[in-house]
Amino acid sequence: MPGTTFHTDQLTVIGPGLLGTSVALGLRQRGFAGRIVALARRQRTLDLARASGGYDTLTTDPAAALENATLALIAVPLSAFRGVFAQIAEHGPAGMVVTDVGSTKASVIADARAELADLSRVIGAHPMAGSENAGPSAGDPDLFLDKPCVMTVSDDDDPQAIALVESLWASLGMSLLRMSPSEHDRQVALVSHLPHLVAVMLMGIAADHGGLDLASTGFMGATRLASSNPPMRADILAANHDEVRHALARLRGQCERVEHWLERGDHSAMLDSLERAASARAAWIVQRAQQPTPDDDTA
Amino acid sequence: MPGTTFHTDQLTVIGPGLLGTSVALGLRQRGFAGRIVALARRQRTLDLARASGGYDTLTTDPAAALENATLALIAVPLSAFRGVFAQIAEHGPAGMVVTDVGSTKASVIADARAELADLSRVIGAHPMAGSENAGPSAGDPDLFLDKPCVMTVSDDDDPQAIALVESLWASLGMSLLRMSPSEHDRQVALVSHLPHLVAVMLMGIAADHGGLDLASTGFMGATRLASSNPPMRADILAANHDEVRHALARLRGQCERVEHWLERGDHSAMLDSLERAASARAAWIVQRAQQPTPDDDTA
Repeated sequence: MPGTTFHTDQLTVIGPGLLGTSVALGLRQRGFAGRIVALARRQRTLDLARASGGYDTLTTDPAAALENATLALIAVPLSAFRGVFAQIAEHGPAGMVVTDVGSTKASVIADARAELADLSRVIGAHPMAGSENAGPSAGDPDLFLDKPCVMTVSDDDDPQAIALVESLWASLGMSLLRMSPSEHDRQVALVSHLPHLVAVMLMGIAADHGGLDLASTGFMGATRLASSNPPMRADILAANHDEVRHALARLRGQCERVEHWLERGDHSAMLDSLERAASARAAWIVQRAQQPTPDDDTA
Repeated sequence: MPGTTFHTDQLTVIGPGLLGTSVALGLRQRGFAGRIVALARRQRTLDLARASGGYDTLTTDPAAALENATLALIAVPLSAFRGVFAQIAEHGPAGMVVTDVGSTKASVIADARAELADLSRVIGAHPMAGSENAGPSAGDPDLFLDKPCVMTVSDDDDPQAIALVESLWASLGMSLLRMSPSEHDRQVALVSHLPHLVAVMLMGIAADHGGLDLASTGFMGATRLASSNPPMRADILAANHDEVRHALARLRGQCERVEHWLERGDHSAMLDSLERAASARAAWIVQRAQQPTPDDDTA
């Protein structure tokens, strides 16, 4: 494995959970020579993070964590972003660059704008990587390898800040994709937030109306996302509520269309729809195999 | 492995595909001593079925296949059932017992009633087992092991016919569940047909509106059922159209409810719903682990 091309004097990981600790461990494994500091609200989190071996210094004091930071990585739940930006406004040194792992991007920018005068060194990112496990103990240096990272970059952003953040994610093995925050949020609503809600609804319907005695591995797979962290998911849905509502309305429209075919006995429309979905999925799987692979359960 | 407790002089498998051939191979492996005959419409199917080693005789002639049958197993697509019952009416010997593997049960009974004067020896079954692969070459003697089999038995059924069919499925390692045809169809609509359609709709929405570049293993799992055999699936949906429409209407109602929460910002209702689905799924998984396991992608 080649040494990392990424360098910064001090990376401060705000929220040393699964993702933050995976960044720390990934950088360490790739020969990163700077300091890595963890900032958490709870001592319990810091104890687990310390055991991971990814950090030089661990603290619950924002002033101490940020004093010498050259890059801050925000890896907290979406509902905690605003408070983190307030800490950065108070304690972040001049010239410090900020990136994050937030699963929605418009809400992160709104939170940043509410607390910071200058957003030109806040370079949003959504690394499409996750795990069913949570917390610092689940940190994995290869969590990001060969997966896409969406970067939300604007024309006003500082080019050196963009380069630093891109080199962070690229050094962990990610392939970078640029997208506007609103386009990112629209697309993740369709391929992440909607599938999650559908799993929740399928599970709820079966629990309330029967069928679990017969339910199969098909049902097991179709409902797997219903087991992912409810508070984290509720945060994400709230942060992206408009796009999620549009996605749900699309699904309702599809339901009505299929109900109509079934009522009319329109077998050929039904068959055509099933054929097109099977073909689209086959094509997507081929395309995926030729590209760095998203592999994300929670993002 | 103990020898089978199942005996009949001649089992005729009508439709020696994945399921029919898995029955033949499963019985052979468990020491079944009777004759096993395959009946198919196409010589190509018979050639593949012959290669499986599960059959004594293979034919495209219904009269020859049924002449000495003591038990017929119907394992054809749902749209072909009516024609098979017509063959049975014409060629089935007196006293022959019939069972099937149809994924819906009310439609099978309606087809039988349309062709046969006496249904007392037609004992419907839905073995909850399948595979992503199809055809005789995919036959697996252990396909049914430790999985549930729904039996649809009515008060008018011949007790000896019931006993014979139950001993067939039990000898293959299945755990038997009795249910009325309408209750079966209602429950499979909720836990099999609805999840399948949801996978199709999620795939279609992403293909039409974007997001596949970001789509994750979560999306991969959520859409897996969209890859299952479209003509077979279209048949099943048509056969169970009323229950599937009710299931789709339930899903639409859930979508509206969630849209409403998101619009109002009702975080606690949203979180409560996610928590309940995660708990229900955890409880179901525990219960599944304590019981013979459904493991069915296609049924």
